[in-house]
Amino acid sequence: MVFMRFCPRLIASSNFRSPKPRIRTLASPPLAAAAAAAARRCCRRVVSMAGQTSEDALRRALAERQAAVGAQAEAVRALKADGAGASKADVDAAVEALKALKVEAGAAARRLQAAVGSGGGGGAAREEMRQAVVNTLERKLFYIPSFKIYRGVAGLYDYGPPGCAVKANVLAFWRQHFVLEENMLEVDCPCVTPEIVLKASGHVEKFTDLMVKDEKTGTCYRADHLLKDYCKEKIEKDLTLSPEKATEFKYVLAVLDDLSAEELGAKLKEYGIVAPDTKNPLSDPYPFNLMFQTSIGPTGLNIGYMRPETAQGIFVNFKDLYYYNGQKLPFAAAQIGQAFRNEISPRQGLLRVREFTELQLSGESAKLVKLGEAVSKGTVNNETLGYFIGRVYLFLTRLGIDKDRLRFRQHLPNEMAHYAADCWDAEIECSYGWIECVGIADRSAYDLRAHSEKSGVPLVAHEKFSKPREVEKLVIVPSKKDLGLAFKGNQKMVVEALEAMSEKEAMDMKAALESKGETNFQVCTLGKDVVITKKMVSISMEKKLEHQRVFTPSVIEPSFGIGRIIYCLFEHSFYTRPSKSEEEQLNVFRFPPIVAPIKCTVFPLVKNQEFDDAAKVIAKALTTTGVSHIIDTTAISIGRRYARTDEIGVPFAVTVDSATSVTIRERDSKEQIRVDIDEIASVVRQLTEGQSTWADVSAKYPSHVGPQGDQE
Amino acid sequence: MVFMRFCPRLIASSNFRSPKPRIRTLASPPLAAAAAAAARRCCRRVVSMAGQTSEDALRRALAERQAAVGAQAEAVRALKADGAGASKADVDAAVEALKALKVEAGAAARRLQAAVGSGGGGGAAREEMRQAVVNTLERKLFYIPSFKIYRGVAGLYDYGPPGCAVKANVLAFWRQHFVLEENMLEVDCPCVTPEIVLKASGHVEKFTDLMVKDEKTGTCYRADHLLKDYCKEKIEKDLTLSPEKATEFKYVLAVLDDLSAEELGAKLKEYGIVAPDTKNPLSDPYPFNLMFQTSIGPTGLNIGYMRPETAQGIFVNFKDLYYYNGQKLPFAAAQIGQAFRNEISPRQGLLRVREFTELQLSGESAKLVKLGEAVSKGTVNNETLGYFIGRVYLFLTRLGIDKDRLRFRQHLPNEMAHYAADCWDAEIECSYGWIECVGIADRSAYDLRAHSEKSGVPLVAHEKFSKPREVEKLVIVPSKKDLGLAFKGNQKMVVEALEAMSEKEAMDMKAALESKGETNFQVCTLGKDVVITKKMVSISMEKKLEHQRVFTPSVIEPSFGIGRIIYCLFEHSFYTRPSKSEEEQLNVFRFPPIVAPIKCTVFPLVKNQEFDDAAKVIAKALTTTGVSHIIDTTAISIGRRYARTDEIGVPFAVTVDSATSVTIRERDSKEQIRVDIDEIASVVRQLTEGQSTWADVSAKYPSHVGPQGDQE
Repeated sequence: MVFMRFCPRLIASSNFRSPKPRIRTLASPPLAAAAAAAARRCCRRVVSMAGQTSEDALRRALAERQAAVGAQAEAVRALKADGAGASKADVDAAVEALKALKVEAGAAARRLQAAVGSGGGGGAAREEMRQAVVNTLERKLFYIPSFKIYRGVAGLYDYGPPGCAVKANVLAFWRQHFVLEENMLEVDCPCVTPEIVLKASGHVEKFTDLMVKDEKTGTCYRADHLLKDYCKEKIEKDLTLSPEKATEFKYVLAVLDDLSAEELGAKLKEYGIVAPDTKNPLSDPYPFNLMFQTSIGPTGLNIGYMRPETAQGIFVNFKDLYYYNGQKLPFAAAQIGQAFRNEISPRQGLLRVREFTELQLSGESAKLVKLGEAVSKGTVNNETLGYFIGRVYLFLTRLGIDKDRLRFRQHLPNEMAHYAADCWDAEIECSYGWIECVGIADRSAYDLRAHSEKSGVPLVAHEKFSKPREVEKLVIVPSKKDLGLAFKGNQKMVVEALEAMSEKEAMDMKAALESKGETNFQVCTLGKDVVITKKMVSISMEKKLEHQRVFTPSVIEPSFGIGRIIYCLFEHSFYTRPSKSEEEQLNVFRFPPIVAPIKCTVFPLVKNQEFDDAAKVIAKALTTTGVSHIIDTTAISIGRRYARTDEIGVPFAVTVDSATSVTIRERDSKEQIRVDIDEIASVVRQLTEGQSTWADVSAKYPSHVGPQGDQE
Repeated sequence: MVFMRFCPRLIASSNFRSPKPRIRTLASPPLAAAAAAAARRCCRRVVSMAGQTSEDALRRALAERQAAVGAQAEAVRALKADGAGASKADVDAAVEALKALKVEAGAAARRLQAAVGSGGGGGAAREEMRQAVVNTLERKLFYIPSFKIYRGVAGLYDYGPPGCAVKANVLAFWRQHFVLEENMLEVDCPCVTPEIVLKASGHVEKFTDLMVKDEKTGTCYRADHLLKDYCKEKIEKDLTLSPEKATEFKYVLAVLDDLSAEELGAKLKEYGIVAPDTKNPLSDPYPFNLMFQTSIGPTGLNIGYMRPETAQGIFVNFKDLYYYNGQKLPFAAAQIGQAFRNEISPRQGLLRVREFTELQLSGESAKLVKLGEAVSKGTVNNETLGYFIGRVYLFLTRLGIDKDRLRFRQHLPNEMAHYAADCWDAEIECSYGWIECVGIADRSAYDLRAHSEKSGVPLVAHEKFSKPREVEKLVIVPSKKDLGLAFKGNQKMVVEALEAMSEKEAMDMKAALESKGETNFQVCTLGKDVVITKKMVSISMEKKLEHQRVFTPSVIEPSFGIGRIIYCLFEHSFYTRPSKSEEEQLNVFRFPPIVAPIKCTVFPLVKNQEFDDAAKVIAKALTTTGVSHIIDTTAISIGRRYARTDEIGVPFAVTVDSATSVTIRERDSKEQIRVDIDEIASVVRQLTEGQSTWADVSAKYPSHVGPQGDQE
């Protein structure tokens, strides 16, 4: 359940989407050079779908081997049978052959198992790695299960002290990278949102997942999850599965998101899927709205919801923001804040799903309207998207996301909702697979139009012409009197249909009326054709002077799931190294300084007044220069203290071993340099703010290889 | 409805509070010297309550004058009557005297009006000032009414671009001032909170306001608001009010918060108060819970609420935080986040009330436990509170809150909830009166005990003794067999009552049993006395070695209403000055640089390539040094551009009038200095980061009095 995905899915009347990863290169180069290069780099990644064929071959090979084993076993039985008259040597040879075939079949089964097992055999290793990360994250209070003393709530996690610091750093960098560097207009809207807003946006009607209930206990499950689990289990664990059946299950997985309630229900029944905990029968699937509902004010009549996305707050403020920007397009608006989703059965561990901090940008671009006019079809659109893809790539990799486990996936044409011109997801690979962390959707003019219509406030932009333009305009004037006489109660529908005609339709009708006096006309809202006569409508093309163009701008909407990004960042930053005693693994987070919860630790090497005083002097200087730090004066060995600071990803450690000069240790290389006390703060600041690298300072200051052991 | 107030009010069994402001000096000096000085400064302010007597005198004087007018009118009528035989001169003199008395009475009425009118005559000026601030704030998009295109929701406001920047700056400074400088442990918990947590904290039962309904339309009002409005209106507008009646209304205002539903209902009936909009009769008052309710997960059975305060998230995490802190006390924890309150009828304009960002600190202090042991009664308590008062004072005044409109008010002993040892509010004066913006409450061990009890997880701290201590311990061993025989189904209640005896009760029982063999014993849960015999219980004092003390720590909880602080900051920072043409007032926000939404604007004096290029060079240097800025190249006069930048509180404006050196203008003094282009970024950075003052740079660089006019 990736939260940006719902954007194109929201209001889609038909919604085909395949979960198969697919990569395309950009159609045209993005706007800025750095972004262009970045976008090229990140789009090189192509996901191999070649595995499929080899898996088929393995299944067939296994089936053949098993058939051969069966046949040989039969042969052995026949040889051994009374009256077969086979010599002992023949029987022995046949048994040997059977054994050999069994060994072969076993190897084929193992090869298939390795190919289909989760992560192709790496599943266990991945699980183990995740457990090591999660243990460290929970032990060091990066995360705490929310309301733990009350046995918690699934899908809700608190950030503890280092987690909070990382989150604050990521948000600050996001604001710097996007809002400040791109002069975006930031807004901050309430979480409680009145129903009318979310009716207009389509969330009240469409923001649902299909749910089934255990018919006896009432426990709820996501219908697609149950079907997915069943199919995956079959594919990965059932080695006797025929290639045809395996293909069927894979097809089901591929179209999972497209299945209607009825289709899902039929599949559950066909496969005999029951409630996983109790084995009770399940209800038919029915939609469950994922918004947390509440009511505003005391009457109970005013329904509100906790916002499911932060984008709507930007759309409803379009008019004010447009004026604030001097009525100029394009501009971008941004919002940082909580969004809420009442998941049916959250189950991805530390990937927070019920509440998440969303970072929302909306770039309203005048140029995109040219698209709507079908002038330069698709080109500009891709350029703007491409620019954001580049900026997002830079943002994520600077945070520390591994560029080899980051990909941008363009939605296939048939995945796209009817209003979406294009949509790209930034996906990050972690132990849960590829996770959608950023969605970059071209929402076109859909939302602004929806809110204009519902609120009656035109959310439009104006383009003043330098000189008035003469335009030909289609003018359709229905004669309400004649239409009323002819159609009575249906008059309104006929009038609306007439006024909604395209230029071609209208000119065709004009010609027909002029030649024949009357014509058939289909009124969709009535579901039938009516006869229109000449006196019922006047159609003409008139020349008019226009001073400006009024239009609804299109919107590109990149949306960031900050909790998911942070979790992936933790996995990508984590590694272990053996301790000197090699008895234990030491955990390290290789956070870049901008992300690290604390930039620097200060350790007096041994406990004495002189070192403690020097540590205080250094701490004060660090405070003044604005470098976050902690002093660790516990009486444990320096090696253990280094291990402790590595485990929360502190990049630099200052060890006070004299009152005049001290050492700085870099976390990942474990190298140390010696620096005078009065220079420490500025050296550490330069390192943490990126003005100098470790290589720079290593070249400048003497390296230190002293008696202070790095590890126990 | 000031949000910190509910803390001591929440769970109070009896709750007397007077809204009269009252100041006390601190009982003992706070911990840190700077904080001590600050606390002394801010506590000097004593609110005068002397006005009351002079108002009484004015009411009496007016009544006397009106009586004199009546008497004289009667005399005139008598003189004029047929048969009175009064001379024309006598009548004329009497009429003149009547006129003079009327003039006197008029003057007395005006004096009374001035004394009782809202703000003592300053009401109109205050209203006008507020309107000017609010107009500027809304026009420059500091605030936008939420969901404005749908006619908004009372009590919900968005922050627009400059408002967001101010909020981000205030939060960053808060984190620096409290979390980083004091090494607090930050947490970040979900907004959606399961019911059990808020049952334990008392919010489900007690977090209510009394509401009345229009009996015909169903419109809801806060009962106390209606009574308050009625009394204020009477006092301020009804000049014929007797001093006795005026005193009664004032008394009602003073005890407003203490009135029960019944008392409030009786007062509404007594005064004949009806629905303000329709004049329909009102229902009796009944409690309305102010939490937004929702349900977690799809079953509808798991009730949740949007958290009403951020403190509970800290309390439920106590155990993990205590271990994280190396099991040492005291420590402090902090949380920044939204809190939610479903107000019945929000009505304080831009003071956001339904959702607000709360900043929560909880300092758990071991020392406070000594209080619980009644060792050093009250002293430590006040010291800790005093320290926080000092820190809060420094925080608020550095943000730009006017120290003369800031006060700290200690709750009176009879205002205090039963669990609160002490409580201070930081109140800021704005056009709405004195607003509680920060509450600093000693919540004692109340919340930790409540959650321990409800969750079954002991939220306690341990103090290891350096050597074991011998303690005498009361040991009560009920004989369940004998008790079971005697009390059957009531056995459990009797056992619990026996085990709950205090040392004195137990020793009295022991004595009685030893002398008489049996004794009467009251079992509250049974509501009666039972007879306990000697064999039913053994009571003894035993010596034991104790290695540690286990206790529930006390909590000091400062809580910040960030939206209120920001609104007050806007009012305190706002002023107007005449433009040169004197045709209009120019608006200025005198934000200190740390608060200002943008630190610096860059203006090419006139539009030409050379100046534009220089402006870009400067902008790039500002970006590199991390100074937020905008370039304004619009073709309007430099004076108008200054006015525009003043109106959003930008402290420094760089005007590019040559390609080598440019000017920096300081917003409030309007003074300008001339600085070389390559020095600009570092000079502005020093100014905005507080490393140099305007006086410093004025002394160093030549001042500029050029042809560039400051205003139109």
